[in-house]
Amino acid sequence: MDFPLPEAVVEAVARRVATDLGYPAWDDDATCPPLAEAFAARMEARYGWPADPAHVRAFTDVNQALQVLLDVTTSAGDAVATHVPAYDPFLATIAGMGRRLLPIPVAADGSFALPAEPAAVLLLVNPHNPTGRSYTRAELESLAHYAERHGSLVIADEIHADLTYAPARHIPFATILPERTVTLTSASKAFNLGGLRCAVAHLGARPVREALAARPAHIYGAPGVLAVDATIAAWRHGDPWLAEVMRVLDRNRRLVAGRLPSGAGHRTPDATYLAWIDFGVPDAAGFLLREARVLLSPGPRYGGAGTFARLNFATSAPILEEILARIGAAINRA
Amino acid sequence: MDFPLPEAVVEAVARRVATDLGYPAWDDDATCPPLAEAFAARMEARYGWPADPAHVRAFTDVNQALQVLLDVTTSAGDAVATHVPAYDPFLATIAGMGRRLLPIPVAADGSFALPAEPAAVLLLVNPHNPTGRSYTRAELESLAHYAERHGSLVIADEIHADLTYAPARHIPFATILPERTVTLTSASKAFNLGGLRCAVAHLGARPVREALAARPAHIYGAPGVLAVDATIAAWRHGDPWLAEVMRVLDRNRRLVAGRLPSGAGHRTPDATYLAWIDFGVPDAAGFLLREARVLLSPGPRYGGAGTFARLNFATSAPILEEILARIGAAINRA
Ligand SMILES: Cc1ncc(COP(=O)(O)O)c(C=O)c1O
Ligand SMILES: Cc1ncc(COP(=O)(O)O)c(C=O)c1O
Repeated sequence: MDFPLPEAVVEAVARRVATDLGYPAWDDDATCPPLAEAFAARMEARYGWPADPAHVRAFTDVNQALQVLLDVTTSAGDAVATHVPAYDPFLATIAGMGRRLLPIPVAADGSFALPAEPAAVLLLVNPHNPTGRSYTRAELESLAHYAERHGSLVIADEIHADLTYAPARHIPFATILPERTVTLTSASKAFNLGGLRCAVAHLGARPVREALAARPAHIYGAPGVLAVDATIAAWRHGDPWLAEVMRVLDRNRRLVAGRLPSGAGHRTPDATYLAWIDFGVPDAAGFLLREARVLLSPGPRYGGAGTFARLNFATSAPILEEILARIGAAINRA
Repeated sequence: MDFPLPEAVVEAVARRVATDLGYPAWDDDATCPPLAEAFAARMEARYGWPADPAHVRAFTDVNQALQVLLDVTTSAGDAVATHVPAYDPFLATIAGMGRRLLPIPVAADGSFALPAEPAAVLLLVNPHNPTGRSYTRAELESLAHYAERHGSLVIADEIHADLTYAPARHIPFATILPERTVTLTSASKAFNLGGLRCAVAHLGARPVREALAARPAHIYGAPGVLAVDATIAAWRHGDPWLAEVMRVLDRNRRLVAGRLPSGAGHRTPDATYLAWIDFGVPDAAGFLLREARVLLSPGPRYGGAGTFARLNFATSAPILEEILARIGAAINRA
């Protein structure tokens, strides 16, 4: 995001640095109790989900947590079902670990049909990157039935949950299928803290807790005190900042929808600061870089067609207007 | 340590927070190039060791790195040789991972004899916690011969290297047996940054590089930007602070040696801010807590006898004098 940091985060870091950077009280506890408490309090307050702090495990990042979970719960060749297009590092994780991608294709209107085949893991990214979908209760229930029917573990990456626009409402998957779900999140998307390296896994599924307990206690490392303090500050005191950011982003998503070239395929996102756009020209991202000097992420990176590109609209209105004007001019010339 | 943070560290954190906390340029590279460069430059400048930045891998902490290395290079039941007494989390790691501890007992004068038995791993902690030994070249060469004779991987934890008092000189084990050695270090001991979570492994041994390359790329997580920036600042700009701290610690280690009760067994440490002391009374740490109201770490925690305790002397002279006076009075009463 192009926005300045939440003041609460800046202050939390300054406060810790003003004391010392020695080992914190929670150091040996992978639950990271103050982080687990802040996470659980937030889930309860925002989503009515009574997450259990004792089932939390801190990681440095969400993709790490996904790799750890796939490593301890699946084997090479096992199927991982996920919506496609998909967040590219997750596609790389599935391929790199020799798991088999079972795509759940997302149609232009954002709908999807469940695969007939079973999957060891259902990797649910909700809200969804790159399409910006926030799945409805009915959709989540259909996914829950699929997971129950096939005995799949559900890994629910809900890192964009706090970036959901009303009237859409984020529903934690763990409220629907608590004992089969591992929830992954981080303050890194909503509060723009990607470099900090602090993420949370809520291990609702007992077999996952047992598998992790059988691994060496410190083998996955731990987030540092500054990252933990900053995350807690964002979650406990960052909501006024977030409300302001959401006002800007909401305006921006409407600006995108309103200013796209007439032929472009686009569904206004329910959540995230990402627009997934079918420009109807081949290698759309390459075309727009050359012809409009704007840098979007190419659709094929996410397993989408080359006519698609992903636009990050977390910037100021003047910059976004310039981006959209240049895109419009280039596409109209094409 | 009871000392304020290096100004360079405080400034580096403030500088990063003043820009943003998004993903850094090196984000997807486990080498963490700016950290690897700072590490290699320091090893060359201080110890004449031309460490290769391309062989560096960033972890969040040294104990994590040890667990990862044991996990990918050894199996349950394999022997891990290490000097005893030993840093307690490493004893917990060896036992917790079902590896077999092959103790190298350290005598009261700091000397040791090599085991007859082979070990899959020689875990060398040099300088040594809790005894404060800095091993001589002759000692390191005897350990190198042992490792070569038995084909052992050497994991050299040199986290206390920068806390070595002249005329002792730290010799990186990788300068003696480069292709069999993995070196672990962190700025966390010398610069008092234990909570940051940033450590470095230099993988001199090719089989270790290959074993790690075969694992999922992000499964061990990554240190955060604030931790990386702070570590680089400490290594590149913290030496004036460290020189001052070393003057205080050097005075303190002499104070400890000079003020211990006459019967106490103690060898002045060559390095570290730790004194390993045989008080000659059973449960020395418990006794001193009750009778002197000072908190030392009990010898048995490190695999030592109950008459031993470890004193951390990284505090101001008045506090250390009070500690030593209380200990002296209590032991003399005993
Ligand atoms: C869906 C999704 N999951 C995870 C992440 C990354 O999280 P982390 O940096 O903690 O791995 C992102 C970042 O863009 C994301 O969009
Ligand atoms: C010998 C030794 N190694 C490692 C560590 C801890 O390092 P980390 O916190 O990076 O695991 C310590 C801390 O006291 C230590 O004394």
